[in-house]
Amino acid sequence: MANSKYEYVRNFELPDSLLPNTWIVVRIDGRAFTKMCAKYSFTKPNDRRALDLMNAAAKAVVAELPEITIGYGISDEYSFVFHKSCNLFERRASKLVSTVVSTFTANYVYSWSAHFPDTPLSPPLPSFDGRAVCYPSVQNLRDYLSWRQVDCHINNLYNTTFWSLIQLGGMDNKEAEKALAGSLAADKNEILFSRFSINYNNEPDIYKKGSVVFRDYELVDPDSHQVAVAMDALAEPVQQSKSQSEGDKKRRAKAKIVVQHLDIIKDDFWNRRPWILSNKPGKVPKEM
Amino acid sequence: MANSKYEYVRNFELPDSLLPNTWIVVRIDGRAFTKMCAKYSFTKPNDRRALDLMNAAAKAVVAELPEITIGYGISDEYSFVFHKSCNLFERRASKLVSTVVSTFTANYVYSWSAHFPDTPLSPPLPSFDGRAVCYPSVQNLRDYLSWRQVDCHINNLYNTTFWSLIQLGGMDNKEAEKALAGSLAADKNEILFSRFSINYNNEPDIYKKGSVVFRDYELVDPDSHQVAVAMDALAEPVQQSKSQSEGDKKRRAKAKIVVQHLDIIKDDFWNRRPWILSNKPGKVPKEM
Amino acid sequence: MANSKYEYVRNFELPDSLLPNTWIVVRIDGRAFTKMCAKYSFTKPNDRRALDLMNAAAKAVVAELPEITIGYGISDEYSFVFHKSCNLFERRASKLVSTVVSTFTANYVYSWSAHFPDTPLSPPLPSFDGRAVCYPSVQNLRDYLSWRQVDCHINNLYNTTFWSLIQLGGMDNKEAEKALAGSLAADKNEILFSRFSINYNNEPDIYKKGSVVFRDYELVDPDSHQVAVAMDALAEPVQQSKSQSEGDKKRRAKAKIVVQHLDIIKDDFWNRRPWILSNKPGKVPKEM
Amino acid sequence: MANSKYEYVRNFELPDSLLPNTWIVVRIDGRAFTKMCAKYSFTKPNDRRALDLMNAAAKAVVAELPEITIGYGISDEYSFVFHKSCNLFERRASKLVSTVVSTFTANYVYSWSAHFPDTPLSPPLPSFDGRAVCYPSVQNLRDYLSWRQVDCHINNLYNTTFWSLIQLGGMDNKEAEKALAGSLAADKNEILFSRFSINYNNEPDIYKKGSVVFRDYELVDPDSHQVAVAMDALAEPVQQSKSQSEGDKKRRAKAKIVVQHLDIIKDDFWNRRPWILSNKPGKVPKEM
Repeated sequence: MANSKYEYVRNFELPDSLLPNTWIVVRIDGRAFTKMCAKYSFTKPNDRRALDLMNAAAKAVVAELPEITIGYGISDEYSFVFHKSCNLFERRASKLVSTVVSTFTANYVYSWSAHFPDTPLSPPLPSFDGRAVCYPSVQNLRDYLSWRQVDCHINNLYNTTFWSLIQLGGMDNKEAEKALAGSLAADKNEILFSRFSINYNNEPDIYKKGSVVFRDYELVDPDSHQVAVAMDALAEPVQQSKSQSEGDKKRRAKAKIVVQHLDIIKDDFWNRRPWILSNKPGKVPKEM
Repeated sequence: MANSKYEYVRNFELPDSLLPNTWIVVRIDGRAFTKMCAKYSFTKPNDRRALDLMNAAAKAVVAELPEITIGYGISDEYSFVFHKSCNLFERRASKLVSTVVSTFTANYVYSWSAHFPDTPLSPPLPSFDGRAVCYPSVQNLRDYLSWRQVDCHINNLYNTTFWSLIQLGGMDNKEAEKALAGSLAADKNEILFSRFSINYNNEPDIYKKGSVVFRDYELVDPDSHQVAVAMDALAEPVQQSKSQSEGDKKRRAKAKIVVQHLDIIKDDFWNRRPWILSNKPGKVPKEM
Repeated sequence: MANSKYEYVRNFELPDSLLPNTWIVVRIDGRAFTKMCAKYSFTKPNDRRALDLMNAAAKAVVAELPEITIGYGISDEYSFVFHKSCNLFERRASKLVSTVVSTFTANYVYSWSAHFPDTPLSPPLPSFDGRAVCYPSVQNLRDYLSWRQVDCHINNLYNTTFWSLIQLGGMDNKEAEKALAGSLAADKNEILFSRFSINYNNEPDIYKKGSVVFRDYELVDPDSHQVAVAMDALAEPVQQSKSQSEGDKKRRAKAKIVVQHLDIIKDDFWNRRPWILSNKPGKVPKEM
Repeated sequence: MANSKYEYVRNFELPDSLLPNTWIVVRIDGRAFTKMCAKYSFTKPNDRRALDLMNAAAKAVVAELPEITIGYGISDEYSFVFHKSCNLFERRASKLVSTVVSTFTANYVYSWSAHFPDTPLSPPLPSFDGRAVCYPSVQNLRDYLSWRQVDCHINNLYNTTFWSLIQLGGMDNKEAEKALAGSLAADKNEILFSRFSINYNNEPDIYKKGSVVFRDYELVDPDSHQVAVAMDALAEPVQQSKSQSEGDKKRRAKAKIVVQHLDIIKDDFWNRRPWILSNKPGKVPKEM
């Protein structure tokens, strides 16, 4: 029973490789998470357990896919950045997207009970969809991440005020919506402070800034020679990742993967961590 | 802090809709399952628990995505067929692939402990990648599924013989490989029978034929008028699924999703289940 | 001076093959033809010389690309249909589109003086753009061509009435537009007949029906056995064109390429010319 | 006769926009030019009339499409570069490719008689195919153009030697091929010089370097401040071309389009013509 008669069907598999020398962002989003939040009684406006679970899953993704240089998450979404020199799966979009989504989902479901010990999962289970987008320049990539972080800020300020009006101010959903219609950021800050004595600036960074996942090395003095070199390296890509030394691999494997809640819009974050854009692992801190 | 400055980055999201009026097959594959098999000591040549787990996850996928008309699985791979009239997610490849992969993975991890009660999961977790392929005609689609089922047969006959030589015949891997090099199907049947008294035909169908998942309705007499009508309906697609009546939805929701181990190469399977290709739900059996 | 240092740039050439077993339509459109019409004083509503020139160029395209099974043109656009079994240029979209557009343009410019002997071309020259679209089924393909032919009819009835109001009725453009706003086909027929004694049905078919280009063989009796066979052949594609006999090639080369002005919406056109969809050349008429 | 019944076929037209902020190269190639060369008795190894005709057609393309910032041609191929900020046709690949190919072909056929006054064209006419490729960085783009120019050099040295062996040395094709098998550049230079007293360096630049087409402005002193500014502008794209001032348009329209035969591999060409990469028109020379 030879199979040759049917093998022509492989010709229908069309290639979907992404343009070389571009930054690949795979963004995943929770499917029907509004229902999920209700079903598992997520705390409003932010459920710390749910965010910690997202971050745990994201760390596992970064650990399993060393080609990811940074991840950024807010609410039920996460963006993972593959370095522009990355050649994983020959840059095939469906392989990259499905692998990230599957690894994330596996870890989310697996780690659920550690974060929600009293709330067992039941079908339909949480799931995520994803897509890949290419960004040709560092500026485009940073603008993408800035876009997400500004979104985090805008949503969180709105949600914090909205739920304060309900939980502390006794409004119902419609009243709170109405109270906020057309309000500016300053108005919301004012409502929080004057009515509920909440200083928005004192809210936890994980809510205000989202979560950044990356391999951690010794921070670099942004004025030093090293940064200049690293930035210069960006000008043009070292060719495909194969040429990277075994040493690089080892240093990367040794690096701790951390989740932090930092401003990634300003230059400082990037200047002090040149390895994220250069793809050259930094110095592993001694204490590790 | 308006976000408009960064929103231009959305222009980099290029569309990836699949050609209308074609059958969409999303095939998923276990990642690094050779390692997985070793780590969790899967039985060779087939681990019934692992296949049952795959089938449980596949049933959940079909249940959550009613646009899937049939699924077919062997070993650590599963193919899901979306009807050619399907317009889910506007047929965007990355949404379709990632949703299938994520739903499958979630259920695989979630149901693991039910199938492997004594073997807890540990990182790195099982995961799957996936891709979408379009097939323009029913013949192409059936040839695709035939290709997978023939592959199942070829692999299973080989593996059954290979592992018999090792487990029953005392060979090591290399000796078994050598013994089978260049052998035809008849040779393998002969080895099984003469040396180990195994009649390959008596092997369980789940190993020989793989697993077919579909909604079950009353079988149709292939000679009846109904089939002719159903097949005729195939000639040209009823336009997009929106027009499908609420009645269709209800009947589909009521239908039991079954996993069976049948020949899907010959016409009989399709003739008796016209709903799979016509996308018109059949008659729900009375006893349900 | 070896070139290997730069050859990596070839990796940026991404494949663009079109899905196999689908009908490929390459449609070309005149660029900025409104200006062209004014510059070269094309007759309104239809310039016979310009249409004959389009048809001459289309015949040359069909002659040079035997994989084209039929072409259909109206105004400054032309659609060329590659048979679904066609494997020319490995079905690469850019090769197919650019070759059709270039061959068409070359012949349009070359044959210009034969059709406009008193109106020499001058820069900027006429040019065309194009795109490729895949249609999975014969019904989709025929609906595409019907769409173009209905468009031809609608536009021509409108334009014939519009220009009659101006050229015979003494209106200016705005008055004519106003007179036709919201009018139905029957209204336009009535205007033509009652005010200008024009029976639209007697207008030349080339204006009312557009132009169909194809290889001509002996017509087939639609009730005969042959048609049934031919239509059956459509059910599933004979695999790729390589297997076609040399005899087919010769018969195709011998066939006369004709331009006719026929209804291609009804079945009759297709039933009597089964070779267009079956890709099996018909019988070359004796008198040729 | 409404057309709505058929309009669904438009859904099969899938988008093909190219990634924003990347350099788009449309490369066109003569189809079957080996036959063409024989049919019209092109001079070997280079036919000056044929190259001049290619360059005339390329100038017309650049004149009609101001979004093209530079073109480069050798033999029967030409590459046209659209600036990375270009938004022409919403960057749709098929529109860009077909428009370039059609405009080039129209001008090639139209200008034929001026360059080959004694050799009238006859069907099948010369035609070209084309494709679009995106390059994310200036370095990638320059490497692409360097690749083409090195190819020009390699081919021309080979062809010059090959045809000298035949035309001056009395060899036939096979003997010449054999004589050159495995030879290095130095060997070919030596053959030319010692056997035919040809100093390859003295060959015309149009053959050795190919042809560069661009808008000409006053050259810039590469050490001046202006260059630094221009190069800095490259770091990140001014957003889409809409924002470009009318002044830019006018200066561009006034600029003379020139064809020159220069080294485009080294930095000098680019440093002295910053407008090519910056997309900011330079200073129009006074004498124009």
